[in-house]
Amino acid sequence: MSNVTVTICTTCRRMGDDTSPRPGTRLRDAVAGAGIEGVTVRGVECLSACSRSCSMVLSGGPDRWSYIYGDLDPATHLDDILAGIRAYGETADGLVPWRARPVVFRKQSIARIPPQNDPQE
Amino acid sequence: MSNVTVTICTTCRRMGDDTSPRPGTRLRDAVAGAGIEGVTVRGVECLSACSRSCSMVLSGGPDRWSYIYGDLDPATHLDDILAGIRAYGETADGLVPWRARPVVFRKQSIARIPPQNDPQE
Repeated sequence: MSNVTVTICTTCRRMGDDTSPRPGTRLRDAVAGAGIEGVTVRGVECLSACSRSCSMVLSGGPDRWSYIYGDLDPATHLDDILAGIRAYGETADGLVPWRARPVVFRKQSIARIPPQNDPQE
Repeated sequence: MSNVTVTICTTCRRMGDDTSPRPGTRLRDAVAGAGIEGVTVRGVECLSACSRSCSMVLSGGPDRWSYIYGDLDPATHLDDILAGIRAYGETADGLVPWRARPVVFRKQSIARIPPQNDPQE
């Protein structure tokens, strides 16, 4: 399935964290380094979700829901994030069954956007 | 320009507000009723931004930034929301100059997503 885009804010860092490279950059590099087939990883300067850093967007074309996640830690959450990306890539509509979602995706969703091609109410 | 989609959570209501139809539904109806040319308005059941209701998404194809806004009031913010949608529709990339954005869009942005066709870092 796949054709997934992961967009990660490379500027993101938590309050009081002055490590370099920044956590958002480390997260981008780690996700890109995992080399998941069919997944494009891109960094951006700002997702305007600064109070919820690190933040990322999971999207996959006009037929899938998009998700924005926050409060991500590139060290402790990486395995769950990669599992969540893989599960998302296996869906046609982006809707991973609730229990199959990693906890970090269940609890740290900032918002979601319906597919561009969704029928309208 | 245009080709804009406005997606509004119709379930949204503020804490303690039990009016009917719900504020999110009223906001959807009011924006749709304005009949802005080139703008499609759709309601959805949930944008997962419930703590920031009413919430809406402004998007416009693969070449524009998308924005998610929250804490919207269908009564007091409607004129500013309509002005903000029009200004967005006049851009090619979705980036309205800061000073031209209505205050409600400057201050109540939850997150933004770069264009699908953006070059990658």
